[in-house]
Amino acid sequence: MTIKTMLKKINTLTDLQEITVEGWVISNRGNDKIRFITINDGSSVSNLQVVIKGDLNNQFNTDKILMGASLKVSGQLHLTPEAKQPFELNASNLVLINNVAEDFPIQKKETTLDFLREIPHLRHRTNLFRAVMIIRNSLLFEVHKYFQEHEFLNVAAPIITSNDGEGAGETLLVDDESKDYFFKQKAFLGVTGQLHAESYAAGFKKVYTFAPTFRAENSHTSRHLAEFWMIEPEVAFYRLNNIIDLADDLLKNAIRNTINNHPDEMAFLDNLQNNELLPTLNKFLDKKLTVIEYKDVVEKLKPFAEQFEEKDIHFGMDLASEHEKFLSDKIVNGPVAVINYPKDIKAFYMYQNEDNQTVAAFDLLVPGIGELIGGSQREERYDKLLQRMNELKIPQEPLKWYLDLRRFGYAPSSGFGIGFERLVMYVTGVSNIRDVIPFPRVAGSIKM
Amino acid sequence: MTIKTMLKKINTLTDLQEITVEGWVISNRGNDKIRFITINDGSSVSNLQVVIKGDLNNQFNTDKILMGASLKVSGQLHLTPEAKQPFELNASNLVLINNVAEDFPIQKKETTLDFLREIPHLRHRTNLFRAVMIIRNSLLFEVHKYFQEHEFLNVAAPIITSNDGEGAGETLLVDDESKDYFFKQKAFLGVTGQLHAESYAAGFKKVYTFAPTFRAENSHTSRHLAEFWMIEPEVAFYRLNNIIDLADDLLKNAIRNTINNHPDEMAFLDNLQNNELLPTLNKFLDKKLTVIEYKDVVEKLKPFAEQFEEKDIHFGMDLASEHEKFLSDKIVNGPVAVINYPKDIKAFYMYQNEDNQTVAAFDLLVPGIGELIGGSQREERYDKLLQRMNELKIPQEPLKWYLDLRRFGYAPSSGFGIGFERLVMYVTGVSNIRDVIPFPRVAGSIKM
Repeated sequence: MTIKTMLKKINTLTDLQEITVEGWVISNRGNDKIRFITINDGSSVSNLQVVIKGDLNNQFNTDKILMGASLKVSGQLHLTPEAKQPFELNASNLVLINNVAEDFPIQKKETTLDFLREIPHLRHRTNLFRAVMIIRNSLLFEVHKYFQEHEFLNVAAPIITSNDGEGAGETLLVDDESKDYFFKQKAFLGVTGQLHAESYAAGFKKVYTFAPTFRAENSHTSRHLAEFWMIEPEVAFYRLNNIIDLADDLLKNAIRNTINNHPDEMAFLDNLQNNELLPTLNKFLDKKLTVIEYKDVVEKLKPFAEQFEEKDIHFGMDLASEHEKFLSDKIVNGPVAVINYPKDIKAFYMYQNEDNQTVAAFDLLVPGIGELIGGSQREERYDKLLQRMNELKIPQEPLKWYLDLRRFGYAPSSGFGIGFERLVMYVTGVSNIRDVIPFPRVAGSIKM
Repeated sequence: MTIKTMLKKINTLTDLQEITVEGWVISNRGNDKIRFITINDGSSVSNLQVVIKGDLNNQFNTDKILMGASLKVSGQLHLTPEAKQPFELNASNLVLINNVAEDFPIQKKETTLDFLREIPHLRHRTNLFRAVMIIRNSLLFEVHKYFQEHEFLNVAAPIITSNDGEGAGETLLVDDESKDYFFKQKAFLGVTGQLHAESYAAGFKKVYTFAPTFRAENSHTSRHLAEFWMIEPEVAFYRLNNIIDLADDLLKNAIRNTINNHPDEMAFLDNLQNNELLPTLNKFLDKKLTVIEYKDVVEKLKPFAEQFEEKDIHFGMDLASEHEKFLSDKIVNGPVAVINYPKDIKAFYMYQNEDNQTVAAFDLLVPGIGELIGGSQREERYDKLLQRMNELKIPQEPLKWYLDLRRFGYAPSSGFGIGFERLVMYVTGVSNIRDVIPFPRVAGSIKM
């Protein structure tokens, strides 16, 4: 039984019950007569206290056991309902599987996040990363579960594509050692699975991808990675308002279930955020999502223009991260969906509204992070789509198949992309994206 | 309500109930007075027959509606318990959303798989690919569900790595447009998440990856792709026998639930395989997995040596696909785990057995496909691992972090990799791996 299961099924545990636990040492204190070794088995941020009494300490050389060592312990459970930890283990047998060398870099003393980023293979053996990775895993499964329960089909959009990401030049290239066009043409690492997902939505109706995506991002911000995971649902017969409702419902379900299923991890993370994390998340869960027109956002930001680095607030501007954060942090004070952006700052495939100025796009912004989701209703009209591609000088030939979808029974289709790591940041309160993915990849560095 | 839900909850449906369905036309036959349009909504391989009577045909121009068109239909359900299809829809309203152009390449007449491989964005609009992709989705979710219910943590192993795949030269390289070492060193697309998963197992105990992996495979076989998905569990405190049990239990659960939840798709696929698919799968589900020593396999194959292209059957040989298939197809007649391979044909990180000749590895072979799973207990002894790396001239420096895991509380650890597309082949009976992934990537070609 794992520590998590014991905590969850505490009412089924009985005093003096025999149990066996395998795990790693978190701390070891005491003396020759009695020793308290706390161990963690990876199932929870909570630990189990093991008590070793009398001669057993000599027998098992418990004073030699260091933080980080792997152990197998058996003994009797001792229920302690009055204590902070509701049970402990009185050891009758203990096997030291593997002790640690003295240069084990995870120690009781405080370490910096910068230092821990140098050792991504070991940093998960701290409370913080244990909690973050458990929450990450929960969100991943909740997202899959939500889509499956709502009859979405998972689609493996290709990672290697001929799509250069709309020529933004921020795409990574793939080739074999000979650099001789392994795929007989230039090949890129996908920046999105959307176009491929659209082709599957036209037939399966409700589909989603959940896969790595890539950017040759040279900026070293706390919000960007060269490799990150994206969730991209696409639904045929859906329009902009339907897909915003889907985004809101998906987020609320995944976050609510994660909070409910991981009280210890969330309490730990909340504590690190001065107890502001859970109230913020709960406020989002309890409130209807705010939806606001881009043009109204511009008017709402104008009075605060002097506070921004980019002070020229006008219709047609792309909202910078500072504007997005100000909107969600200060004006709305919660998540907000901004809709109907000027077409010139959005992608060619978005549905052109009747005003001839805007497209049926939305960005979902959350406090502290800014953009968490970007999506749109897609242009279903062949002629309109072709015309927009021509205006933007996007070559037709590579996207002929995509245009053709509109000639073969295409229904209105809408979708969005969630940057999965940004979602993990939002739910854990962690402020640097490199700390919510096991092995972060950024320009100029591959650690492990 | 989707067609799948209606079929599943057939007992809750009532005659004359009002329903609305959105989907795509599979066939359209009849005359001015009565028309039968079958539509599919992507939820199932089963279709819904829509009956349009009398003047409604003129009103909705039903004779102009082509196969592949998208429709929205409302009307009354008519239960037909005596018929093959247990219900049909009497249309009272019909909206043609988007008809198809005449060059829509999916037509009633038979098309070849080769032809369909040229149009991966449209081939899912055939019964075969609809069934295959629904089964693929089911297997994906069943795998996640199994691991989550057994308290495994999903780990995002990095896709971009500094690991050249043990120098096999079959690794794809990544760089930006300038080809100037975007990551300040040679960067590769991962061939496995195992080494990284091991570091997380040493702390979380039970972890798994489920992600794309890559090979610069130049062979054009029906079993290889340049881009495919791998499932890689890794469990600390597990030894070889434990991980084989895990593989067996995981496969049986995922396959059993998929068969139970998708009777229509499995019946359709079984029918394509002369009704041999379901009996084969059920035989596997009902039987304990056969486990056999590599050295015994060699003895069992020797009498059949003349049947193989590679006739020199001896201890130390690597089993070719023809040998693996013969073993599982003819000798065992079902899935079989071969264990304890000669160390010289296996990877450096595998646990060295006491005989000094073999390693604690296993391959799980299945009829018709050959290798579905490869795994091992890992070498937990620092000195033994280092010695093996030296023997094989594997540079120490890039793997120092991996070696170091053994110095920092490493417990015995075991894991395996399942080629997800091979699992889909096994369960669907499809014989070419390019037909079980939406957009297959092989040397020399990127379609869409």
